[in-house]
Amino acid sequence: MVMIDGGVTAPKGFYAANTAAGIKYRDRDDMAMIVSEADCVTAGTYTKNVVKAAPVIWDKKITSSDTPVRAVVVNAGIANACTGDEGMEYCQKTADAAAKAIKGWSMTSNAAAKAINRDDTAYNISSDGILVASTGVIGMQLPIEKLEAGVEAMSKKLSDSREAANLAARAIMTTDTIPKEAAATVEIGGQTVTIAAMTKGSGMIHPNMCTMLCFVTTDADIDKKLLQSALSEVVEDTFNMISVDGDTSTNDTCVVLANGLAKNPKINEKSNDYEVFKEALFEVLKKLAMMMAGDGEGATALFEVTVNGARTINEAKILAKSVITSSLTKAAIYGHDANWGRILCALGYSGVDFDPVKVRLTFKSAAGSILIAENGHGAGFDEEEATRILSEDHVTAICEMNMGDASATAWGCDLTHEYVSINADYRS
Amino acid sequence: MVMIDGGVTAPKGFYAANTAAGIKYRDRDDMAMIVSEADCVTAGTYTKNVVKAAPVIWDKKITSSDTPVRAVVVNAGIANACTGDEGMEYCQKTADAAAKAIKGWSMTSNAAAKAINRDDTAYNISSDGILVASTGVIGMQLPIEKLEAGVEAMSKKLSDSREAANLAARAIMTTDTIPKEAAATVEIGGQTVTIAAMTKGSGMIHPNMCTMLCFVTTDADIDKKLLQSALSEVVEDTFNMISVDGDTSTNDTCVVLANGLAKNPKINEKSNDYEVFKEALFEVLKKLAMMMAGDGEGATALFEVTVNGARTINEAKILAKSVITSSLTKAAIYGHDANWGRILCALGYSGVDFDPVKVRLTFKSAAGSILIAENGHGAGFDEEEATRILSEDHVTAICEMNMGDASATAWGCDLTHEYVSINADYRS
Repeated sequence: MVMIDGGVTAPKGFYAANTAAGIKYRDRDDMAMIVSEADCVTAGTYTKNVVKAAPVIWDKKITSSDTPVRAVVVNAGIANACTGDEGMEYCQKTADAAAKAIKGWSMTSNAAAKAINRDDTAYNISSDGILVASTGVIGMQLPIEKLEAGVEAMSKKLSDSREAANLAARAIMTTDTIPKEAAATVEIGGQTVTIAAMTKGSGMIHPNMCTMLCFVTTDADIDKKLLQSALSEVVEDTFNMISVDGDTSTNDTCVVLANGLAKNPKINEKSNDYEVFKEALFEVLKKLAMMMAGDGEGATALFEVTVNGARTINEAKILAKSVITSSLTKAAIYGHDANWGRILCALGYSGVDFDPVKVRLTFKSAAGSILIAENGHGAGFDEEEATRILSEDHVTAICEMNMGDASATAWGCDLTHEYVSINADYRS
Repeated sequence: MVMIDGGVTAPKGFYAANTAAGIKYRDRDDMAMIVSEADCVTAGTYTKNVVKAAPVIWDKKITSSDTPVRAVVVNAGIANACTGDEGMEYCQKTADAAAKAIKGWSMTSNAAAKAINRDDTAYNISSDGILVASTGVIGMQLPIEKLEAGVEAMSKKLSDSREAANLAARAIMTTDTIPKEAAATVEIGGQTVTIAAMTKGSGMIHPNMCTMLCFVTTDADIDKKLLQSALSEVVEDTFNMISVDGDTSTNDTCVVLANGLAKNPKINEKSNDYEVFKEALFEVLKKLAMMMAGDGEGATALFEVTVNGARTINEAKILAKSVITSSLTKAAIYGHDANWGRILCALGYSGVDFDPVKVRLTFKSAAGSILIAENGHGAGFDEEEATRILSEDHVTAICEMNMGDASATAWGCDLTHEYVSINADYRS
């Protein structure tokens, strides 16, 4: 497995485009599109919020069916959530516009010539094969004509270049400060398989209101059920282990499009090939999860918490998540304050039973590591040294529970003045 | 039931004192003591955090036994949490000092003459009859000599005046900006029974790290089991319905001392008298709960959320709490922004199932009320009018779920820049 520099256009047969449709923002791109030149099998994971945005309902129906998918259309600025029947209608209209535009592109562009395994059906692109995603303010209706015009404009500039992928990753940002892309390659049956993804936002279980969206492209040839299984397992250990603010969005979406163009022996069972694919998917999504946590709204630091020595992996996860979601701990990290009592306190109210006297707590960063507490009280550490270690932009707390041998890691960020500013002013 | 102006000295036979012991703060009081001239039956509710401060362990043992109690000693500045055996030893030493000092006071002061039902045993004050409570930084050891000197000093100035109660309520504050007292009287069997309390901090389920402490005094004559039952029920609907930041402290404590000096017919069963007593206790603790939420760290507004039309009270509580703990909703309240999507979103991830289309959301304050959303989308309200209503210091969101007839109310506060400042700098 090799991590490579690349975005959603890195796997064979994937194209991307971006445009400024003028949906809500001024002077910036706010739409992106990913198109595969061949039909894709798909998998998806979505928000568990009872209030689901229209695009979530739309995509969930498609990825849970056998419908082949050819494209994803994304907009930033308005979430198309709490928008009733009108919101669902706009998903249909966006998909209609995309199906029409991509059909035109397929017949006229060079891409058609590059298609490897395409047959006539590839030209029969229907609205059912178009995923849509939205992020932004809840409760506003989309200006649908602008989206339709945006889709048309993007279909004319689809490209499989590195730059096209990067511009697409930038176009879907809301309060993100950096675009988030990752890619990896693996060898499967003598063929190079590429997995790439772009994401925006900050969370899956606890996403930022600006929503987590993640689009994974791969040229792997893989059975749909196994693709879903790999995605579901990997999301549990990556996106579901990050938190920015404890709020679970109405729009969270993570979808994978696999077009099979790598020509690997098809992954049909939970074989070694499946594990190799899953491992690469894990590394790509883990990198993006850490980028999202570190780029949490207003954050100045990525805050990583590893729990070791728990009785079960589930308990280790609950403990680690309890610490990264503690407002008081996050504010202390912002203040570079080794306020270890807040960490013990957050472990304590997690719901997992343990003996506080057995816990051993260490802080670690690029500046070094320092033992902070053990045997139920402070370890008599040097405060200045601790502050120096906590002043880096990636800080790790390691909690040894001494109860068993299960481990888990969660990622969050500090709580800052800027977070409050962003969210007190976001909508108005 | 009549709410009266008063603090912990309002019920018959209760005295209070305060002092500046120099534990951590400079130039302010940091210790308080409440003493009853007669033995009290007690009840208590405590933090559910696995990591329990030494005073919590100390008090829990006493209030769950039949030991008569005569006093509570409280300090602010250091929490005596994560302090190991040494911390437990300091509880003992504080109680020893208090038992000795109060015995001296009982024998020499006028208070002795005022005792109504006291017999010789009242002079046999033992350390087992002294509750202790601490609030402040976790992980530091108490300067025990300063506490012992503080107890001695306070025993010389015990008073049943209104002012003494108020000074005690001020002495236990940490990041609180106002002292919190409440009192009520009820008639039981022809006698006037008084219930009073002082509290500090901001929560029970989700308290501020500066911890919630609540001390209730009453001259009611009531069976110990019924006192505990009344307290447990009332705490569920008051302190357990407030949240400032989602962190559950190691020190949360709410204790009631009942000395029986009102001479009411003893409450021995769940009679009408019991209900009258419980109702007054509810009103006293509800007033304090709302004061705590409104005085949450950095808060500019009390944020009340009422859920109506839920299927069960438990579901109504979960829904209401989910909204008051949503960082994004709290930041929007700070910004006076009618960002109703965040409220629907927080209802949606609460874990309670409902139909978003049926929800009807109204904002209300002293400036008026306004319908914000219904039928799954915005109600086309006037933004300026909404902002005007949300600019008050007590703002209420009313969520009609239209599923049943259960209701619940929760209280929180807005999330502000000041909250971050307080908690990034608190310990250092």
